[in-house]
Amino acid sequence: MANALRNSFKYGCSGLLSQLSLHCRHGRVCASPYAAVQQRNNSSSAKIKVDLDASTGVAVMWMQSPPVNSLSLDFLTEFAISLEKLEMDRSCRGLIITSTLPKVFSAGLDIMDMYGKSPEHCGEFWKAVQEMWLKVYGSNMVTIAAINGSSPAGGCLMSIACDYRIMADNPRYSIGLNETKLGIVAPFWFKDTMVNTVGHRTTEIALELGLLYTSPEALKIGLVDQLVPEEQVLTTATETMTKWLAIPDHARQITKSMMRKQTIDKLLANREADTHNFVSFITKDSIQRSLRMYLEMLKKRKA
Amino acid sequence: MANALRNSFKYGCSGLLSQLSLHCRHGRVCASPYAAVQQRNNSSSAKIKVDLDASTGVAVMWMQSPPVNSLSLDFLTEFAISLEKLEMDRSCRGLIITSTLPKVFSAGLDIMDMYGKSPEHCGEFWKAVQEMWLKVYGSNMVTIAAINGSSPAGGCLMSIACDYRIMADNPRYSIGLNETKLGIVAPFWFKDTMVNTVGHRTTEIALELGLLYTSPEALKIGLVDQLVPEEQVLTTATETMTKWLAIPDHARQITKSMMRKQTIDKLLANREADTHNFVSFITKDSIQRSLRMYLEMLKKRKA
Amino acid sequence: MANALRNSFKYGCSGLLSQLSLHCRHGRVCASPYAAVQQRNNSSSAKIKVDLDASTGVAVMWMQSPPVNSLSLDFLTEFAISLEKLEMDRSCRGLIITSTLPKVFSAGLDIMDMYGKSPEHCGEFWKAVQEMWLKVYGSNMVTIAAINGSSPAGGCLMSIACDYRIMADNPRYSIGLNETKLGIVAPFWFKDTMVNTVGHRTTEIALELGLLYTSPEALKIGLVDQLVPEEQVLTTATETMTKWLAIPDHARQITKSMMRKQTIDKLLANREADTHNFVSFITKDSIQRSLRMYLEMLKKRKA
Repeated sequence: MANALRNSFKYGCSGLLSQLSLHCRHGRVCASPYAAVQQRNNSSSAKIKVDLDASTGVAVMWMQSPPVNSLSLDFLTEFAISLEKLEMDRSCRGLIITSTLPKVFSAGLDIMDMYGKSPEHCGEFWKAVQEMWLKVYGSNMVTIAAINGSSPAGGCLMSIACDYRIMADNPRYSIGLNETKLGIVAPFWFKDTMVNTVGHRTTEIALELGLLYTSPEALKIGLVDQLVPEEQVLTTATETMTKWLAIPDHARQITKSMMRKQTIDKLLANREADTHNFVSFITKDSIQRSLRMYLEMLKKRKA
Repeated sequence: MANALRNSFKYGCSGLLSQLSLHCRHGRVCASPYAAVQQRNNSSSAKIKVDLDASTGVAVMWMQSPPVNSLSLDFLTEFAISLEKLEMDRSCRGLIITSTLPKVFSAGLDIMDMYGKSPEHCGEFWKAVQEMWLKVYGSNMVTIAAINGSSPAGGCLMSIACDYRIMADNPRYSIGLNETKLGIVAPFWFKDTMVNTVGHRTTEIALELGLLYTSPEALKIGLVDQLVPEEQVLTTATETMTKWLAIPDHARQITKSMMRKQTIDKLLANREADTHNFVSFITKDSIQRSLRMYLEMLKKRKA
Repeated sequence: MANALRNSFKYGCSGLLSQLSLHCRHGRVCASPYAAVQQRNNSSSAKIKVDLDASTGVAVMWMQSPPVNSLSLDFLTEFAISLEKLEMDRSCRGLIITSTLPKVFSAGLDIMDMYGKSPEHCGEFWKAVQEMWLKVYGSNMVTIAAINGSSPAGGCLMSIACDYRIMADNPRYSIGLNETKLGIVAPFWFKDTMVNTVGHRTTEIALELGLLYTSPEALKIGLVDQLVPEEQVLTTATETMTKWLAIPDHARQITKSMMRKQTIDKLLANREADTHNFVSFITKDSIQRSLRMYLEMLKKRKA
């Protein structure tokens, strides 16, 4: 296992670094956990802003946690509270999730909530990740991801939990569940959501190789539903929402539940075991060493 | 709920009416439940005609219940009897289902069997719908739908229960499970059949939005297998049947059962509950009000 | 049943013979069970050769059992032993399976192990088929099928049990589960593997019609992942392997198990019953008669 994890570090990081260097070569913001550490100081400002249009019943949830909308425990807690408020607000029928940040929708789970933390903290963090997925995948609202930047790992999970995905038509933006590239494993409910979206075989190859798809590739395999020029992502999401809201809510909601209930129930029935699995995996000395080396490498690179 | 249903009426009907007006603008017979009421008087004539070619072992089942082959209790009863006769006739190995009517294969379930009827009647009606699906989806014969016109809702269900679908290459003809547009919900076995045909994600979006696909769109998503010019639908079905009948019956039948048994068993195990669900939903005051308003609107439109 | 099997013989054989004659017309080696009988005499030579490159950790398994790499009990036993050795060799991380024979990858199960044999022999044979699939589908190694020739029935099963399929871009080569054409039935775990690869609907039509797909067709439905010129099949497999081995083994293995475990467990839980089903089917007088007539017809044809 220790050996496997050393391999994991070696292959995983070189894989990620080559991606990051690619990002930097093109002058883009690096979606790095290191950067994520830096920004945790300004925790006073809200990580999420919600605009609800009372006339249409459509809320836009802006993710605005620089530099890369990392899904930290704090972020996820704020996300869950915002979503629950909207869910209980009868005047709100549709939700669009998007990012205020340039070039990134969300970079996924925040490594800082997994590194050097107590098992209790890791457990709380994981429950928050589960909660985000449960709330989005099972929402009674129409949910549209307006993906205006890259969306790896947890960012991809959030996107595929929505009802519809519109992505900026920019081959520099990518989306996918790339966990294996980092030596970690997407849990069964990430996998189930992916299978429900792109089918068994595409999921198998995507998850085993930790593939990130450019937006045209993502459209081709059905990981996103539509590509539009970047400046039209939000307006297209708003127009699309109108079509979805033309369907009677109760009929759409019962149908959505029929399509998704089994997948949701599977996590609900195994939630404790899933949390336990995550905590015992992530708190292993070998994994923590890999995470430390990974973060140090990123810092050195940054310097 | 009442409010949801008023919404359902508002959205559902406007959606359907715009479809109908489109139909009428093009000079086609309107697939309206109102028209269905009119034709119930001539119940003496057979709604289904069967031609069995003894030399080939292939039967053609002509649906000939004007104006739109609505699946009424009477129609479904006649359908089930005809199908059972063919199923037990050892000389019959293949079945082609088609329509004698211009521009419509079948408009789906007959609203007149759901409106103003006793719970007992609604229950009988629903059992007949189940029976139609069970008999077609589980048939030992090779079943080919020769879809020579539009085929919404129950018409789509009948089509996807067959082994193969050939549709007229006419973008004015559409097919799909559009129940949510009317504020009602396709039950789990409609959904399962659709998932088995076009996959989970396409089904999710099709059912939540109640999408009707033009024949080219239907081909693209795999909802039908082949498009041919309208006048060649039946001849192509006959030619295709020859290829299917070249396969040894017992091997094909065991294979078909292996592919479909689980889906069939799910309804068989839940048939009573499914009927109960339908009856208690459709006999609700609010739903009945919606149906009445819907029928009145169609009458007014017609006048 | 006897009648069904006579039909099976009539239709099945004519189907296969037309294929074979097509093969012969193009001057290719006929993938015939008769030929398979002939070659059983030189059983002293190894049917499989393994080259393990210690520097890359990649083994190439050459199937070299002329004329058509039939999956006989002897072949499968040797295959299982070779695979198990590699699986336990920690220096081996990847496996490429290919053929040394011209124009054929593997012609599938050897009829000579099903014809005129005792129930005990048939049972042993079937367990060896199960074992081949269990070992390949569940392998911890990265497995790539380098399909440099036709690959019907059992040859297709072996291919779709791998992680990735590269096929020679030659429309004369075909691949598919064509059992029904011979009047026999692919068991549920062949079907499950096919559904996991190409989805439910494509599997339904492929298995019911016993379809063999040319390599371009196979690529289109996702039955193979990539086509390359014949002389580049092995080199492309080697290059592709490098990409797969860049993923940390433990993360890839856990992910692979998550994708495949349920399908594997289903056979493990029903292995005895599945063997029993096969033996009682294949030892029926009627099936044995069909096999005899089939073999005689092939001999006559050959003569």
